[in-house]
Amino acid sequence: MLQSKLFSRTTKNLPEGEESKNAQLLTKGGFVNKSSAGVYSMLPLGLKVLNKINQIIREEMNAIGGEELLMPSLVQKKYWEQSVRWGVDVIYKTGETIKSEKDLQYGLGWTHEEVISAIAKHFINSYKDLPKAVYQIQTKFRAEPRAQAGLLRGREFLMKDLYSFHLDEKDLNDFYRKVIDAYKKIMDRLCLKALVTEASGGAFTKEFTHEFQVLNSAGEDTVMHCEKCDWAQNKEITQVAEGGKCPKCGGVVKSDRGIEVANVFRLGTKFSKDFNLNYLDQNGEKKMVVMGSYGIGPTRLMGTLVEEYNDEKGIIWPDSVASFKVHLIVLGDSAKAQKEADKTYENLVRHFGELEVLYDERNASAGEKLNDADLLGAPWRIVVSEKTMAEKRVEVKRRSEKTAKLVSIKEFFKLAA
Amino acid sequence: MLQSKLFSRTTKNLPEGEESKNAQLLTKGGFVNKSSAGVYSMLPLGLKVLNKINQIIREEMNAIGGEELLMPSLVQKKYWEQSVRWGVDVIYKTGETIKSEKDLQYGLGWTHEEVISAIAKHFINSYKDLPKAVYQIQTKFRAEPRAQAGLLRGREFLMKDLYSFHLDEKDLNDFYRKVIDAYKKIMDRLCLKALVTEASGGAFTKEFTHEFQVLNSAGEDTVMHCEKCDWAQNKEITQVAEGGKCPKCGGVVKSDRGIEVANVFRLGTKFSKDFNLNYLDQNGEKKMVVMGSYGIGPTRLMGTLVEEYNDEKGIIWPDSVASFKVHLIVLGDSAKAQKEADKTYENLVRHFGELEVLYDERNASAGEKLNDADLLGAPWRIVVSEKTMAEKRVEVKRRSEKTAKLVSIKEFFKLAA
Repeated sequence: MLQSKLFSRTTKNLPEGEESKNAQLLTKGGFVNKSSAGVYSMLPLGLKVLNKINQIIREEMNAIGGEELLMPSLVQKKYWEQSVRWGVDVIYKTGETIKSEKDLQYGLGWTHEEVISAIAKHFINSYKDLPKAVYQIQTKFRAEPRAQAGLLRGREFLMKDLYSFHLDEKDLNDFYRKVIDAYKKIMDRLCLKALVTEASGGAFTKEFTHEFQVLNSAGEDTVMHCEKCDWAQNKEITQVAEGGKCPKCGGVVKSDRGIEVANVFRLGTKFSKDFNLNYLDQNGEKKMVVMGSYGIGPTRLMGTLVEEYNDEKGIIWPDSVASFKVHLIVLGDSAKAQKEADKTYENLVRHFGELEVLYDERNASAGEKLNDADLLGAPWRIVVSEKTMAEKRVEVKRRSEKTAKLVSIKEFFKLAA
Repeated sequence: MLQSKLFSRTTKNLPEGEESKNAQLLTKGGFVNKSSAGVYSMLPLGLKVLNKINQIIREEMNAIGGEELLMPSLVQKKYWEQSVRWGVDVIYKTGETIKSEKDLQYGLGWTHEEVISAIAKHFINSYKDLPKAVYQIQTKFRAEPRAQAGLLRGREFLMKDLYSFHLDEKDLNDFYRKVIDAYKKIMDRLCLKALVTEASGGAFTKEFTHEFQVLNSAGEDTVMHCEKCDWAQNKEITQVAEGGKCPKCGGVVKSDRGIEVANVFRLGTKFSKDFNLNYLDQNGEKKMVVMGSYGIGPTRLMGTLVEEYNDEKGIIWPDSVASFKVHLIVLGDSAKAQKEADKTYENLVRHFGELEVLYDERNASAGEKLNDADLLGAPWRIVVSEKTMAEKRVEVKRRSEKTAKLVSIKEFFKLAA
């Protein structure tokens, strides 16, 4: 893509009170635009990142047998009443505007156990119909009183929510472990190191649930974790103090802030009871379906990636999610350099596809162009100038490294493979 | 995909009062699930169709230079007040639930001229920044008093909304024509015949706007159109009566019901004024940006396709949007036929990809299987049975045709190419 044609451009202006690092960098780069506290538009550059995150999640959900669907945001009051969640703090209520239907109120979907349980009733009747797993990648709404952490805590945000249905606890536990493994793969592909952290089961289960916590000072949770092994617990439930002994290996326990990017939940029969979701077993006996739910936050992941991968100049996107793989820059205003850069652009597009190459062909200063490239954070920067042409090379720099080198385009293709 | 593993299955049960043909067939087939009036979940089969429609739209929007973004649904009151649209009937209001911020009310996005104008202010300052075009494919909310037409009129539905920004009326008109051409391509790819119908400009412009109307008795609009040429006007604005003379060619004017699947709108400077969206021209003079907006309804298109393509047995999806290209069925319970069908399935998957082949390997009656195939409406049905095996062929039937024929798989690949 030509940078001059982009809808957005970089800016130094930030909305008032925008204090989180992720929102600052994403706004400066033109990835997002804040429309009110906790509510952001994904501009074209940001949507590209988000779609790459979504696609990684989608592939791993499909790989464990998840089928994608899409549930509504307007969830009628009766659904929430059935599970006694109409009164929760975070629910946005609406619907009174339809004068002709006074009783028709909705709670905007902040999670979808209710809706999916009602749907599943149509398709689950027998043990032969189990197990099943469905997920969606969908906009959620939560009336968060604090919404000042950029993409880390939104009032409107994207969520991948997976729901599973099982014969019994054993089958649920097997799938629960599969989801944990799938989530680990997702984190790997996103280049995020996340601790699988034990946390409270809340109202649904006496067993632990598990949170995926990325240790980062921007996080709102406190994670107690072993320096040596993979033991980790949310501070809310742990009985081990900082500096204490790891209950698993005896190592030293540390305390750090964490961003909860995903969680997995055994729901047991809570919603099966509420929605009368039963099946007939092999003996014709009626049993309750056992459920699990599993969340992951694509927009929060995007914010987390920025919190994890940045320097004083801007964002350093991991290759798997960058808006563009290569940022090509032409320096100097000689027609010769411009022509050579145009040729290089065509070459790069042939190799990586148009969507993966951003070409800064603007009539702007070297400083402006190089600063923009650092802020936008594509993994590879290529400079074409009279100087590089004299060497019959291009200047290649990895965003995550300090030094550039002169190589031929062929050599670059090898480097970037 | 194996039919036994599908989350949904076909059903004869319909929600109370579900009278529209599209909702009936889509519900019976397990494509959608109604959660309240005008609010549907897209089940896996339905989401596949919807995603194909979206992808066609996306490709044609990108082809005319549109950049995709994603705006929020929580649109703060102040935006609607700026355009004096806080009081419209269809707006769902919410936000009072956040006790700590009493003034923070939102109108759920039912269209996004306000939000995009506020965003564009950040990126449009000079004539050099124009023209620009951005679009989103996003869930919209409208408090429709009548919501009984299935996917044709939803309270929550998907919309592709494109917004364009121009130097002047001439540039807007050039782009406006480009969008009309892009929409024609979309309709062609979806196998829908739509009349480009003149309609009222409403509050924004004295010029006509244009609606894309698919003539169908399920439609809510009345379209006056020429039997001979392409002249068409919405009855609301026309001065020609049924049986009258076409003002363009003198042909006879007919009256038919139409489903409005898309529209294109010249906004002029309405929102530029409201949001102070200006640019400096070549002489340094401040001018107002001239805007257009262009809507197309993917969920409504899905409903329209069902209204257009069905028979007494079920849906007849056009090839471009079908959940599956091929529905493979094994008949009879001989192990030999099952084995041959398994082999055929692998063969089909190798050729078309797993996502495009549905394999009914269930232990069910021939009638049930054939009825399901007709209801689900994949363009090609292939039957493997002892009978077809005796001929060393498979039985191939196009959903839109009456007769089946015996061919080799190789011949089928040629037919389906």
